[in-house]
Amino acid sequence: MAGSYRVAVVGASGYGGAEIVRLLSSHPCATVTVATSGRSAGRALRDECPWLSTDLTLTAFEPEKVDVDVVFLCQEAGFAMEHAANLVGHAKVIDLSADFRLKDHGVFERTYGRPHTNPDLGGEPEYGLPELVDRERIAASPLIANPGCYPTATLLAIMPLIRAGLAQGTPVVDAKSGVSGAGRSKKETDYLFSELSGGFKPYAVTGHRHNPEIEQLAGRPVRFTPHLIPAARGLEATCHVQVGDSSRDALRELFRESYRSEPFVSVRDTPPSTKQVLGSNRCDIFVDYDARTGFAVVCSVIDNLVKGAAGQAIQNMNLMLGLPEDTGLPKDGIWP
Amino acid sequence: MAGSYRVAVVGASGYGGAEIVRLLSSHPCATVTVATSGRSAGRALRDECPWLSTDLTLTAFEPEKVDVDVVFLCQEAGFAMEHAANLVGHAKVIDLSADFRLKDHGVFERTYGRPHTNPDLGGEPEYGLPELVDRERIAASPLIANPGCYPTATLLAIMPLIRAGLAQGTPVVDAKSGVSGAGRSKKETDYLFSELSGGFKPYAVTGHRHNPEIEQLAGRPVRFTPHLIPAARGLEATCHVQVGDSSRDALRELFRESYRSEPFVSVRDTPPSTKQVLGSNRCDIFVDYDARTGFAVVCSVIDNLVKGAAGQAIQNMNLMLGLPEDTGLPKDGIWP
Amino acid sequence: MAGSYRVAVVGASGYGGAEIVRLLSSHPCATVTVATSGRSAGRALRDECPWLSTDLTLTAFEPEKVDVDVVFLCQEAGFAMEHAANLVGHAKVIDLSADFRLKDHGVFERTYGRPHTNPDLGGEPEYGLPELVDRERIAASPLIANPGCYPTATLLAIMPLIRAGLAQGTPVVDAKSGVSGAGRSKKETDYLFSELSGGFKPYAVTGHRHNPEIEQLAGRPVRFTPHLIPAARGLEATCHVQVGDSSRDALRELFRESYRSEPFVSVRDTPPSTKQVLGSNRCDIFVDYDARTGFAVVCSVIDNLVKGAAGQAIQNMNLMLGLPEDTGLPKDGIWP
Amino acid sequence: MAGSYRVAVVGASGYGGAEIVRLLSSHPCATVTVATSGRSAGRALRDECPWLSTDLTLTAFEPEKVDVDVVFLCQEAGFAMEHAANLVGHAKVIDLSADFRLKDHGVFERTYGRPHTNPDLGGEPEYGLPELVDRERIAASPLIANPGCYPTATLLAIMPLIRAGLAQGTPVVDAKSGVSGAGRSKKETDYLFSELSGGFKPYAVTGHRHNPEIEQLAGRPVRFTPHLIPAARGLEATCHVQVGDSSRDALRELFRESYRSEPFVSVRDTPPSTKQVLGSNRCDIFVDYDARTGFAVVCSVIDNLVKGAAGQAIQNMNLMLGLPEDTGLPKDGIWP
Repeated sequence: MAGSYRVAVVGASGYGGAEIVRLLSSHPCATVTVATSGRSAGRALRDECPWLSTDLTLTAFEPEKVDVDVVFLCQEAGFAMEHAANLVGHAKVIDLSADFRLKDHGVFERTYGRPHTNPDLGGEPEYGLPELVDRERIAASPLIANPGCYPTATLLAIMPLIRAGLAQGTPVVDAKSGVSGAGRSKKETDYLFSELSGGFKPYAVTGHRHNPEIEQLAGRPVRFTPHLIPAARGLEATCHVQVGDSSRDALRELFRESYRSEPFVSVRDTPPSTKQVLGSNRCDIFVDYDARTGFAVVCSVIDNLVKGAAGQAIQNMNLMLGLPEDTGLPKDGIWP
Repeated sequence: MAGSYRVAVVGASGYGGAEIVRLLSSHPCATVTVATSGRSAGRALRDECPWLSTDLTLTAFEPEKVDVDVVFLCQEAGFAMEHAANLVGHAKVIDLSADFRLKDHGVFERTYGRPHTNPDLGGEPEYGLPELVDRERIAASPLIANPGCYPTATLLAIMPLIRAGLAQGTPVVDAKSGVSGAGRSKKETDYLFSELSGGFKPYAVTGHRHNPEIEQLAGRPVRFTPHLIPAARGLEATCHVQVGDSSRDALRELFRESYRSEPFVSVRDTPPSTKQVLGSNRCDIFVDYDARTGFAVVCSVIDNLVKGAAGQAIQNMNLMLGLPEDTGLPKDGIWP
Repeated sequence: MAGSYRVAVVGASGYGGAEIVRLLSSHPCATVTVATSGRSAGRALRDECPWLSTDLTLTAFEPEKVDVDVVFLCQEAGFAMEHAANLVGHAKVIDLSADFRLKDHGVFERTYGRPHTNPDLGGEPEYGLPELVDRERIAASPLIANPGCYPTATLLAIMPLIRAGLAQGTPVVDAKSGVSGAGRSKKETDYLFSELSGGFKPYAVTGHRHNPEIEQLAGRPVRFTPHLIPAARGLEATCHVQVGDSSRDALRELFRESYRSEPFVSVRDTPPSTKQVLGSNRCDIFVDYDARTGFAVVCSVIDNLVKGAAGQAIQNMNLMLGLPEDTGLPKDGIWP
Repeated sequence: MAGSYRVAVVGASGYGGAEIVRLLSSHPCATVTVATSGRSAGRALRDECPWLSTDLTLTAFEPEKVDVDVVFLCQEAGFAMEHAANLVGHAKVIDLSADFRLKDHGVFERTYGRPHTNPDLGGEPEYGLPELVDRERIAASPLIANPGCYPTATLLAIMPLIRAGLAQGTPVVDAKSGVSGAGRSKKETDYLFSELSGGFKPYAVTGHRHNPEIEQLAGRPVRFTPHLIPAARGLEATCHVQVGDSSRDALRELFRESYRSEPFVSVRDTPPSTKQVLGSNRCDIFVDYDARTGFAVVCSVIDNLVKGAAGQAIQNMNLMLGLPEDTGLPKDGIWP
């Protein structure tokens, strides 16, 4: 029955959580019944997020009282590790943090600077990038680790080359994200409007936390540098991959074939703007070949808060609930 | 039956027309079956508008071949006057231009610098601002003149004061719009990114074409100046109206009462940002009272392409088709 | 001798203070020798402000050790009231806060919510808006209260009408500022890039603190509402003033005559963008007449950090030191 | 004597030409006496460029009448080839187009799709990147080919590695520019504000025209992709260069040493934003080492219209006139 699945969004007043609330407001089979907030429990969600029209009131998170079919965890590092074991079994759990993304807990600990408690979930958490992992494993898993935004755009751009055995050497990934990737926090002056408006800059030039997540699926070292775009949303990855002798047509055909049946990946004939996927769950990809240097150049764009977070989480929810994968997810971007 | 109404969008590759296509892609009872373009007939709509995922091919406009239930006219001044008579009777017609907005054709001619041909439509065109005109007249009219973006935001902000008999003197309306209001045209260097980015400016300081449209419903002269916001979307109107002795509470209660049953007008407790209605069909309104000067100050925000154009056009379509007025129209904004 | 005046900037790592450092780097007769910071004493100024190339090291503020000719105070409310008496006599003092702007201390106390200590400065502080006050009084005063950004743009736009006896009723001022007016503080999530980017909003709709400062010189109540532009710099004021029977030509002639000999005020024939004065000490003004309603509409633009703060402060310094008023101050904007 | 050199700016109403006018307005030894425009001859420069305060009137370009010491050519491809021979000998000539940048005319012809007429200049044109070529050759040359914006930022970032013999394989350069790099032309809808605002995109993914210019000095193939930043100014290049075994400290020391005496190149300890060099002639560089992959990552930022065009042109003028190289050129950026 339409709207019959009940959903809890834990951390609903942050950008990722609020985006799940927004997207589910037009989902035909799921309704948000619980929205929690650590700081703002008791307030109307729409006072915290004036762009939402919902009547939901924010509550404190009390795992034992969460009586829903699906729980989205949109909290900081460590929260899911602490609470997931109490939720699995009672509800499908989708975690938007990094807690369960890295299978090698040693890598997790070096990357995030905290121990991995490896809680007993009664089954393996699965990495929820549906286009690149086994969808049946996603459907069967008790907990989905929703991918990071940079890994989503990067892996969709480079995995066809890697799986086809074409990639040589170290892929170089130069990625750029809108500022909303930094979250809705007042901790830093760095994210003030006046500091960022009209400027563009690299950060975490070597050693970004998403680098190991990319390498886990890529199966090789990846040279990765992210940058900050002076825009709130949107993420682009330009991936330079040595492939030796090839052609633009052959590469495009490989990508077209790889994503032929994917509802959310579109291989385009012209370089895409992040703008064309804003608000949508699409990933648009452009492939070119640089004959002089023997590189494939693959450019992918996503909305970091949709395909890079909330939209992909709902795509995973659809798979876990046995719904058509694209249920309730927008395919058109908002432009201009 | 869901999706059963067939819709033509005439001028589908401009910002207004493409926005109708985007919004109708999630409308449960209407499907775009015809999309026309003067310049790009024969091309895929999605090549002209890479943000859309539709498979529609653009065609030339041939009125006699348009076999649909609803026609949206998204063309320049004069087009609707020329073609509307051939369309009414066969389909509901909603015109997004100014051709039929002004009932006094003398005012039309002075404002738009062209004669009004006053074609025989077999009935009166109606001004489609549902919150402020008689919805039954909209439902019954052969052709709806969809309001301008500035008049929509302004009239929703000032009419409660005027209808309550509170407004004294000349209302002063200081309005600001995102750049998309200027359309998708290459005629002018004025709208180049580099000319506008990071700047803000007034234009048409006296004598903007929407001024008479505002005054037609207001029933009095209105002092009106528009400005250009360095953002693509969003429109704000700050309306300074002398009301003499009053209070903030009394004014808010008046607005709350005026819009109590409206699905798309929301009276807020804090000054709204254009950002909170982006992509939505909402108009958010804030009312304050300046005791020292005896002015009511009313601030309203809309998305100029949704409530200010495409969304309001679909709201009118819903009324004409006898559907619930809010069918298929988003109430949440996209943020950040 | 060139560069011979020594200058202290108290609060040099904020936007206003750093802008004074930047502007003075090309001033032929003044050199910043002391730059203080409450939080960052001991650090290189250029580590706090990577856009500056200076070698200055930030120090703590110790009034008794400040051995300079001119002191710019760029601190929060209350600082100047506390320290000015220790500085006057030893150096020319220019205060960029509101501490000494309002001559009526009762109004000050109601506006800023703190008592005015009225320290003994050995003379009257003067309001440093050179185009509208007596320059000889500025030159002779021990301390200059540098005007607020909104009052600067507003008063330059409305005072010619008021002084000519043309203004009737309550002037309505609808003003808009770039985000840098809020300073370089991390106190609020409100000023995060993602919260403001692509949006526009009113704030302090009635009762902004600059309102009494405007009224002090205007000599009458003024209806004033400010807004936030999604840009870092730039400020525009659109002033709607009832004048009864007049003409565009007569009004422009009045403004041209009023500012004929002013190096920094330019009366333009087309509506100005904030962009055209960015980085410059200019105020560009456009005047129009709305015959239907009998209003003069005056639009003025400034860079809020230059003519609205640091540049005007240096203009005042030049007057106090007996230098040509425009020494070292840029007249060209940075575009695009 | 101050201001004694007379300067002509040919093409003064475009972004590059107008920036030369702006920068020279505070140059102590040079004065613009001639400003030409193909389209707007007879109009005041300040009507075309309202940000400038100059009183200059635009004139048609008549080479035989240009009686100045220095000519800046700011025109489209082909103009300098046609007119340079008539100017050299009478004045120092600095060309901001690509006409004389590529020494191999076969490469020029393939890149720009037009023949190179190789006019007789009475001497060799020199590539005017002072930090990387022989300054005495610049001083002695009859005509300077002012470098492109991308080559300036890229070459300053990679040449120290190449000259030290550290660079292995193909350098990968991922560059991003503000929109002003596209000029002030109305030819394309692509550069409309509404099409670009809030978005980020790659373009010319392989085969950008600046690629051969980079390779000419680098002496090897370079993998190069440019992108468009949603900002008017600023350019960043992230250069990924395989260097094998090294360290961050060793690389930084190499760059510090390479640029120790350069007034306009600054090696920084933190990743730079394009914002920190806006309006200045600086190039700020950050160097890092990715131990896992053996890559040096070098990030450089410039203002594309200053160090990437007009500022560097004046730097070359200073060298040609025997003035100190940094005369009249700003070192501070404008922030926020």
